Amino acid sequence: MALDKTKPMALDNPKSPPRLMNDARPIGVFDSGIGGLTVLQKLIQRFPHENFVYLGDTARLPYGTKSPHTIRKYSEQNLEFLCKQNVKSLVVACSSASTQVLEAEFQDRKVYTVITPSAKKALKESFTKRIGVLGTRATIASQAYCLAAKKIEPTSLVFSVACPLFVPFAEEGWVEDPLTNLVAYRYLKDLTKQNIDTLILGCTHYPLLSNAIQKVMGAGVTLIDSGSAVADQMAPELVPAIIPTPASDRTDRTEQVQIFVTDESDQFRILAERILGPAKIQSLELISL
Amino acid sequence: MALDKTKPMALDNPKSPPRLMNDARPIGVFDSGIGGLTVLQKLIQRFPHENFVYLGDTARLPYGTKSPHTIRKYSEQNLEFLCKQNVKSLVVACSSASTQVLEAEFQDRKVYTVITPSAKKALKESFTKRIGVLGTRATIASQAYCLAAKKIEPTSLVFSVACPLFVPFAEEGWVEDPLTNLVAYRYLKDLTKQNIDTLILGCTHYPLLSNAIQKVMGAGVTLIDSGSAVADQMAPELVPAIIPTPASDRTDRTEQVQIFVTDESDQFRILAERILGPAKIQSLELISL
Repeated sequence: MALDKTKPMALDNPKSPPRLMNDARPIGVFDSGIGGLTVLQKLIQRFPHENFVYLGDTARLPYGTKSPHTIRKYSEQNLEFLCKQNVKSLVVACSSASTQVLEAEFQDRKVYTVITPSAKKALKESFTKRIGVLGTRATIASQAYCLAAKKIEPTSLVFSVACPLFVPFAEEGWVEDPLTNLVAYRYLKDLTKQNIDTLILGCTHYPLLSNAIQKVMGAGVTLIDSGSAVADQMAPELVPAIIPTPASDRTDRTEQVQIFVTDESDQFRILAERILGPAKIQSLELISL
Repeated sequence: MALDKTKPMALDNPKSPPRLMNDARPIGVFDSGIGGLTVLQKLIQRFPHENFVYLGDTARLPYGTKSPHTIRKYSEQNLEFLCKQNVKSLVVACSSASTQVLEAEFQDRKVYTVITPSAKKALKESFTKRIGVLGTRATIASQAYCLAAKKIEPTSLVFSVACPLFVPFAEEGWVEDPLTNLVAYRYLKDLTKQNIDTLILGCTHYPLLSNAIQKVMGAGVTLIDSGSAVADQMAPELVPAIIPTPASDRTDRTEQVQIFVTDESDQFRILAERILGPAKIQSLELISL
């Protein structure tokens, strides 16, 4: 029987061949702004043979302070836009949006959100099954990471902390800064008493502050970022690099990354080049949703 | 000659009677979120006989990080919405939006922005004509306060500082906090060397952090908030309280404040009641723009 190429493979069917790897269409990724570039960076590194379309909804960022209804509405518009770019699968590279996108498929494309993959990776790394989650107010209020972890491992204990100032600190560029360490300490001091051994960075901006977070939590706590987690989830369907290629060794690579933003910003290109480099940004285009 | 009641009076014509005071329609005020409530509070206090319609564009906040084009587009939508509520005049209670609204009138209503009134008030208070301006990145980049001050007083010297983290700190409720003092010190330490005697709080959130700002700048520097400045500007057209009534003495007042927001938020009502109290909020309604 010929494979139906219009439909993505079900991941939980081990007999299906990894079909997406023979599909030349790009992978669509969206986030409210720059945060999702940390996810895109990991995907480029893990799947150097793929092309990507990235949408940063910069006109309407941040999502983390908005209501579920509004986040849902914006997420749907973003997914629709990516589908129009003829992508083969969809990555919701934003935790707040991932809490509201419940479909496994959207317009016949498989949807990857960051919640379950991160919870799965955290529980795999954790010995004690006592894990932490940091996120925006919206993400933490949704309890999405907590519910995902409990579903995978009912005996797990999840300790959540909302850290609303981490995103503005990352966007201000105060990442290696004594003030950032103080803010991290303020948010995390109670969490250090919970004996967790693994901590999910439940917002795509947070990997930019991982040094400050690690300093407060101590070296014994493993940090889980959404990018690596979602790459793990996608791996069975894509051709991975034999050994994940460090960004610095990939100067000969001519991968295609198309970026769309909903608000013009000089800073976006600078940050995108810094985070994604040496991957080449083919185009950066302003659109209206 | 009968007055044309469809058109507001020109403020610079001293012979025109203050017509708006006989017009029972409400005054329309908009901001990207809660910040403009500090302006509304001052207007209610100064004009206790007026009714108000407030629009907080909470779904799309903050404006201060967005491009001029996007801020302009959103501001127009907000003004159009307020006009549909049959307001008699319009207050742009957001500095970032005020930099993009250049019309003196919109749909035959007079438009009050916060830029020129604040510059005027600051220069009136200043002895040395060396003044400072704090604002979001968008506001400071626009140089709007600087240009307004130079137009009023060409010999004035204006020192501007963008303070992007002040809004998230105010929204996090960290207002009387050692960390806020440290962030204020980081932003303002260079400004303390400029011998200014007056400082414009060029963002409607900043009055919430005035204690931290005053601590760094010292008691010799007068802080100017947009609310008082715009009330001064509107005074010739409205019936003021004989003596501005302290909020605590106005429990018998049944003024009408209708609030519209573009995103649902439990916190908005709590903050609105805290900032505006004891003024009564007649309704708080969710709308889509």
